[in-house]
Amino acid sequence: MSRATRAFKVLISHPNVPAPALELLRSRGAETIICQSVPPSRDEILQKVPGVDAIYWAHYQPLNAGILDAAGSQLRCVSTMSSGIDFVDIPEFQKRGIPLGHTPGVVKNAVADLAIGLMIAAGRHFHAGRTEIERSQWKIEQINWMMGQEIRDSVIGFFGFGGISQAIAKRLQCWDVAKIIYHTRTRKENDGDFKAEHVSFEQLLQESDFLVVAAPLTNETREKFNGKAFDLMKRSSVFVNVARGGLVNQTDLHDALTTGTISAAGLDVTTPEPLPANSPLLKVPNCVILPHMGTQTMKTTIEMSLLAANNILNAIEGKPMIRPAY
Amino acid sequence: MSRATRAFKVLISHPNVPAPALELLRSRGAETIICQSVPPSRDEILQKVPGVDAIYWAHYQPLNAGILDAAGSQLRCVSTMSSGIDFVDIPEFQKRGIPLGHTPGVVKNAVADLAIGLMIAAGRHFHAGRTEIERSQWKIEQINWMMGQEIRDSVIGFFGFGGISQAIAKRLQCWDVAKIIYHTRTRKENDGDFKAEHVSFEQLLQESDFLVVAAPLTNETREKFNGKAFDLMKRSSVFVNVARGGLVNQTDLHDALTTGTISAAGLDVTTPEPLPANSPLLKVPNCVILPHMGTQTMKTTIEMSLLAANNILNAIEGKPMIRPAY
Repeated sequence: MSRATRAFKVLISHPNVPAPALELLRSRGAETIICQSVPPSRDEILQKVPGVDAIYWAHYQPLNAGILDAAGSQLRCVSTMSSGIDFVDIPEFQKRGIPLGHTPGVVKNAVADLAIGLMIAAGRHFHAGRTEIERSQWKIEQINWMMGQEIRDSVIGFFGFGGISQAIAKRLQCWDVAKIIYHTRTRKENDGDFKAEHVSFEQLLQESDFLVVAAPLTNETREKFNGKAFDLMKRSSVFVNVARGGLVNQTDLHDALTTGTISAAGLDVTTPEPLPANSPLLKVPNCVILPHMGTQTMKTTIEMSLLAANNILNAIEGKPMIRPAY
Repeated sequence: MSRATRAFKVLISHPNVPAPALELLRSRGAETIICQSVPPSRDEILQKVPGVDAIYWAHYQPLNAGILDAAGSQLRCVSTMSSGIDFVDIPEFQKRGIPLGHTPGVVKNAVADLAIGLMIAAGRHFHAGRTEIERSQWKIEQINWMMGQEIRDSVIGFFGFGGISQAIAKRLQCWDVAKIIYHTRTRKENDGDFKAEHVSFEQLLQESDFLVVAAPLTNETREKFNGKAFDLMKRSSVFVNVARGGLVNQTDLHDALTTGTISAAGLDVTTPEPLPANSPLLKVPNCVILPHMGTQTMKTTIEMSLLAANNILNAIEGKPMIRPAY
């Protein structure tokens, strides 16, 4: 019996992993051990993980030595079902030589739609507008009321220019934007496909009419968007974050929004998550806030779940993962 | 002295008409008589309008025989600063042979951005998501929470296929949609430019994943979107209205949203406007509502104001209006 077809055990950390992924794993010989708690319980995981060949990590709690030790030395691979992996202790995986996969790329479409929705919702005052209806303050016959930013003829700036930024830039090719600029450590070779120009961080801040953050959270990017950064931005600019809340100093963002340093913000991510209902940011009319729903479409969720399954199947079958995390 | 350069009087119905339009009128010989009330006062207009050569109607109150009679028989032309002109008694203008202009076309860009914002905000549960944050119900680690509709691979349907629909369709050319369909009385000759297909009203209802209403309010279109129409739509469909509230039977829409007949709605227009703060529609989590802000960008407002001014200047100078309303 070949290694590929021998039965193997996969711990599934969440009961709502889409059926197509589970069916794929089983069709290739997996016994799936599915944790039932929602939200997932570390106790349940630690109880069920000993002896498995693979871990399918479908949530965002710390994935570290504690889990790997509990699994045991027969563990052959792990994949998250997420693009961001800031909750994973990657050096621990590297030290042990355990293949780790994740699911970047496929999330880009769902997140790109949502990011453009946030650009428009923030730039066109969706939250402030609704609030005024609820306060019986819907103004009619006022030409200058709720004047918003149009995407046409705007400079669209990206912090990070990976799959998500590129999916946004692709969608905006038909919007008659003034130009697309981005900042990354090194220029992306395919930026010409999106008519995008590599700029310094300072230029990104100074020139963007819409600035979209779509970069991993690292020690280098943590709180990159702070008061000093907001001070360099245009007063008319719209700031959008679909990456991780940790890239932003949230107190400084609150100040920038309430003092008019920038015009508006659209956030799918915050610090912490969940954001408390009494967060000052929820009182700011020019801030659109969502509860981290960037990838929440069935189409993308199924695609993510299948990619995570294929990462695991490849590793089990002795092949490189499709999307290795290191 | 030629007719073109002779001084003439223009009543401006609103004090916030952008300065570039007023400057243009004055540079071509106009004396501008500016009403100061906000919202505009019919009494003030009736007091200032007698004897003017032109009326620049920058708001949405009834423009009818009462105004034309008050102006007097020397009145030579009128332009609204709006695309929709359901507040104008057009037969009265036709009977008197008074040229009437409006400002379609230029509004399309601002409205198209907002419409796509509404497609995404409604399809991705922006309002429900925020409400859950405010209720301390932000769910984490739940794969199936707030699952939304993606634009990619969706059928985008338009009711009406004029400038606004075409501006939306143009913007969506790079989004990998499944197809674009539209319903109008007769096929639009330029629909190939947008890879759009003319369909019956029933097909539009049955096939659209996102259905965008962008058509004038007429006796024929009034309450076209009623219970019978919503019943034909997909349960997963997202309904967007950026035209006029009167095209929709709002009670039926409320029922369709609360019973799951359709998935979500995004409305920039309602009946009445302003929508009362106790409207049942404001209690529906899957309904994004805005206070009629489709054209509210400075860029588009200036473009509208200049077009209205040029309509008037053309008529005064004996030429056809740029955008005549009949």
